Amino acid sequence: MIECYAAFAAKQKLKEFRYAEPRQIGPMDAVIGISHCGICHSDIHLIDNDWQTSRYPLVPGHEIIGKVERVGVDVRDLTPGQRVGVGWQAGSCGNCEWCRRGEENLCPDDTATAVGHYGGFARKVIVDSRFVFPIPPLMASESAAPLLCAGITVYSPLRRLTKPGDKVGVIGIGGLGHLAVQFARALGCHVTAFSHTPGKEEEARALGAGDFIGSKDKNTLAKLKRHFDFLLTTVNVTLDWELYLAMLRPNGRLIVVGAVDKPLEIPAGAIISGQKGVIASVIGSPGMIREMLDFAARERIAARTEVLPLKDVNAALDRVRQNKARYRMVLEV
Amino acid sequence: MIECYAAFAAKQKLKEFRYAEPRQIGPMDAVIGISHCGICHSDIHLIDNDWQTSRYPLVPGHEIIGKVERVGVDVRDLTPGQRVGVGWQAGSCGNCEWCRRGEENLCPDDTATAVGHYGGFARKVIVDSRFVFPIPPLMASESAAPLLCAGITVYSPLRRLTKPGDKVGVIGIGGLGHLAVQFARALGCHVTAFSHTPGKEEEARALGAGDFIGSKDKNTLAKLKRHFDFLLTTVNVTLDWELYLAMLRPNGRLIVVGAVDKPLEIPAGAIISGQKGVIASVIGSPGMIREMLDFAARERIAARTEVLPLKDVNAALDRVRQNKARYRMVLEV
Repeated sequence: MIECYAAFAAKQKLKEFRYAEPRQIGPMDAVIGISHCGICHSDIHLIDNDWQTSRYPLVPGHEIIGKVERVGVDVRDLTPGQRVGVGWQAGSCGNCEWCRRGEENLCPDDTATAVGHYGGFARKVIVDSRFVFPIPPLMASESAAPLLCAGITVYSPLRRLTKPGDKVGVIGIGGLGHLAVQFARALGCHVTAFSHTPGKEEEARALGAGDFIGSKDKNTLAKLKRHFDFLLTTVNVTLDWELYLAMLRPNGRLIVVGAVDKPLEIPAGAIISGQKGVIASVIGSPGMIREMLDFAARERIAARTEVLPLKDVNAALDRVRQNKARYRMVLEV
Repeated sequence: MIECYAAFAAKQKLKEFRYAEPRQIGPMDAVIGISHCGICHSDIHLIDNDWQTSRYPLVPGHEIIGKVERVGVDVRDLTPGQRVGVGWQAGSCGNCEWCRRGEENLCPDDTATAVGHYGGFARKVIVDSRFVFPIPPLMASESAAPLLCAGITVYSPLRRLTKPGDKVGVIGIGGLGHLAVQFARALGCHVTAFSHTPGKEEEARALGAGDFIGSKDKNTLAKLKRHFDFLLTTVNVTLDWELYLAMLRPNGRLIVVGAVDKPLEIPAGAIISGQKGVIASVIGSPGMIREMLDFAARERIAARTEVLPLKDVNAALDRVRQNKARYRMVLEV
């Protein structure tokens, strides 16, 4: 039996849960013995059934670090005992245009680690080995776990879209944002951190931000016209989108990776003048996750975390719900 | 004196108006004797002061064809008698980053032909010669006039963003849309025309559309999931944006060139899933306008127009207000 924590209904506290570990696993599957699992805001959305896709009992957790326990007969690239990570995606169809191109994150028939599949708040997880990634040796496991979802979510658009020298604003210095500041800086961008919390200035600068803007002050924001090549918004609340779009230089892009609750209201004039755009990004391909882990190891990019034991999962979830985590909660198994 | 037609207050009919032709013009200016001027929806917005930028008397008109009458002492590339065109832009600062890069359409201190400057519903217009373009010899003037604004507005994003073989949907088959269908087809894309008017199907196909969708039927629209690489919206009314975004393939882009009256409502989930985007485009640089004219001449791309004499300007404007023009009204001077 695999011991884990599950939600049994929307918005409920998690409780202990067990499911049977299959004697036989699929030829491409891997069983991972979990040592750490980060808590992402989307775990909260899943527990609460905010996206109407949840099935209960629901075992959250998709920022997993652990060791390979056993692999299916066709797995060639993983060895028992090897330290690995698993993120949002636990499988994909393998046959569609996107899978065949190595862009499995765009597969319309993918499997999410914690949607209709038991996730990482557990002693073990069983996933398609194509979505299991070796972790570079020098990374601490608790600092590496959040890279698997928060990290790739911000690395992918920064890597694909920015050029060294670009002016990048990171909106929201939380789990995603504090990694985005580090990645954007290491990619050669000038980084401005936007946060509602003035107390985060010193840390944001230590992470690589050249400037810090207290985003509660609309007057300060209104002065920053035509300043940024990119604004990466990691928050899940509605902002004054017109005000932020005015901060973009011509051809600038507002990159959306935060699951904002209400539709973004975008006046046509705010994007036509200066031919700007609002574009989204979703996690990253397996190839890009491998690249990100390598880049993070080389550039000494790590999540700043608060670690609690798995049995304290409900306390940890509360800290995430209250936006108190600095900057990511990680459960230790 | 230069004879023209002007609005003297918002939402009023145009009346005859004259202004003095300066004896001395700027060293880089050109005086154009106008033969034709197209009517763009933005002329209506300017007459009505919809954008709060209008100054009266306001002489609309920014799809101008005519002949060079005289040029300033520093103009080297225009000759009196030469047939030329002028579009939305009549000048730019010449000194900013964007002007120096040849992207004058992004200059923050530009001059629009009909905003704070007397436009093309007139016998003559005086503009910066850098924004005066030779018209290829085989084009009829009335078919060329709409290229200067409607044409470049759709050509620029199609040329910069699409690849041959892409599936492109053109939403709205009017002044901009009927040119977009022709340009997208000539650029090697598979084109689907979306129109509220079933009667436009035959013409849309003749212009190059491979498919035609009657866009009043939401059931038909809902079936087209993950189909298009690009949707180019040329309309100025609010659409069901979520429905159209669902028609985009992963990495697809909704390109906005129509001055929609209300903010676009974009659910974050509708762009995060499939990492889609909403991007705008604004006219085109002088270099791209020259390229477009050459491309249109080579590919035999022309606006389909209804021509009325300049004195019937108010009747022509009414046809535009009522969306009756097939597909562009052009005034003949």
